[in-house]
Amino acid sequence: MSQEHDTETAFMEATYRALCTHGYADLTMQDIADETDKSKAALHYHFDGKDDLFREFLAYLHEGFAEKIVDHPDGSPVAKLVALVRRVLDPVDDGADQQFNTAFMEIKAQAPYRDGYREVLRRFDADLRSEVADLVTEAIDAGQYGEETDPEEVAEHVLTYIHGTWTRAAAVGADVVTMREHLIDDLLDLLVEGEPVPAVAATAGPRTLDDEDDEDGAACGADADDGVRRE
Amino acid sequence: MSQEHDTETAFMEATYRALCTHGYADLTMQDIADETDKSKAALHYHFDGKDDLFREFLAYLHEGFAEKIVDHPDGSPVAKLVALVRRVLDPVDDGADQQFNTAFMEIKAQAPYRDGYREVLRRFDADLRSEVADLVTEAIDAGQYGEETDPEEVAEHVLTYIHGTWTRAAAVGADVVTMREHLIDDLLDLLVEGEPVPAVAATAGPRTLDDEDDEDGAACGADADDGVRRE
Repeated sequence: MSQEHDTETAFMEATYRALCTHGYADLTMQDIADETDKSKAALHYHFDGKDDLFREFLAYLHEGFAEKIVDHPDGSPVAKLVALVRRVLDPVDDGADQQFNTAFMEIKAQAPYRDGYREVLRRFDADLRSEVADLVTEAIDAGQYGEETDPEEVAEHVLTYIHGTWTRAAAVGADVVTMREHLIDDLLDLLVEGEPVPAVAATAGPRTLDDEDDEDGAACGADADDGVRRE
Repeated sequence: MSQEHDTETAFMEATYRALCTHGYADLTMQDIADETDKSKAALHYHFDGKDDLFREFLAYLHEGFAEKIVDHPDGSPVAKLVALVRRVLDPVDDGADQQFNTAFMEIKAQAPYRDGYREVLRRFDADLRSEVADLVTEAIDAGQYGEETDPEEVAEHVLTYIHGTWTRAAAVGADVVTMREHLIDDLLDLLVEGEPVPAVAATAGPRTLDDEDDEDGAACGADADDGVRRE
């Protein structure tokens, strides 16, 4: 990797940490520079202001997200689907995740007003939708879901519900794990009668902090390694 | 109504309009005063800064919302439930509603950081949840839904899905009516086999702007009369 690339990655990770601390609205270029050993001038050399930096940051997050959602464990299509939902709605650390989730909501709220934001957010949406739809199609082919199941409809449902989970977590502090398990129940309800409930879904149950094997994850203030990994 | 009360109501309506124009993050007390024939000094006399004004504004919105969600048309419990979802997810005017929806998302994103915001947002959540749960209970009692239906679970589902609809509309411009009709399909899928689909659900279909009989509704820039009515 070039030094140029390393510097930009360092700025992306700094942006992640700065967002956790300051939120989006009040965030300054100085706050981001302060999270690195580089100057604000260096930050301005790389990015043409906050909007430009955030377009890059969203693209950076998107790249990590796109990798994350296609990284399935072994198992049946429905097991993969359940694992995908768990991965996307996985509160590694409640307080810190909440902070980033909240900052990300501010960014979503800015999407109609900032050039390029909505385009990247649409890619998040489209990737997740097509991944879910593909797994539902696989589940139909494997006989786990009935032929009448509409993959696009299930994918739309999952997407809207996931956005709702994030929003309710930020707005009213609703419990992510409870909402997530309801969504998983919806997906298991689609199983053809007599089909076994996938082991991953039957045994995993709601996870707690202690279950986490990826402690160096997406915790705000630590690094941006989980879900936003770039290389 | 006292003059005092009239003035506060005028400021609430001005806040609604100002939010539509400026969004939440950049909104100043001056912007709100500019939407009235009163001075910024008068605004400061009534409210102790932006946070205080917004707590009042959320309470004002909540009051209108609480009235709106209990105002059911005649019909079976499931017809009322479907009508409730339509009312809550009713895009009176796409562009304007989107602007207010987006500003409201900014407010939700601020909830963890501002005293009192989350408490009011929780009342929105709690009212809608209990109204949905009550209607589901009525539907069970009326034999429209099976005894095994869990009112609290349905209510949680509806709430999360509604929040997701608002968020996806703001973040990626997803179509509210399409998402809403999916939610209504979910509610109709719960009908006991052989139960007639309520007329309101079967005939209304996706509504367009031309269908609206409430043209003086929640349009941003017009007034705050629909869904935020106070008296």
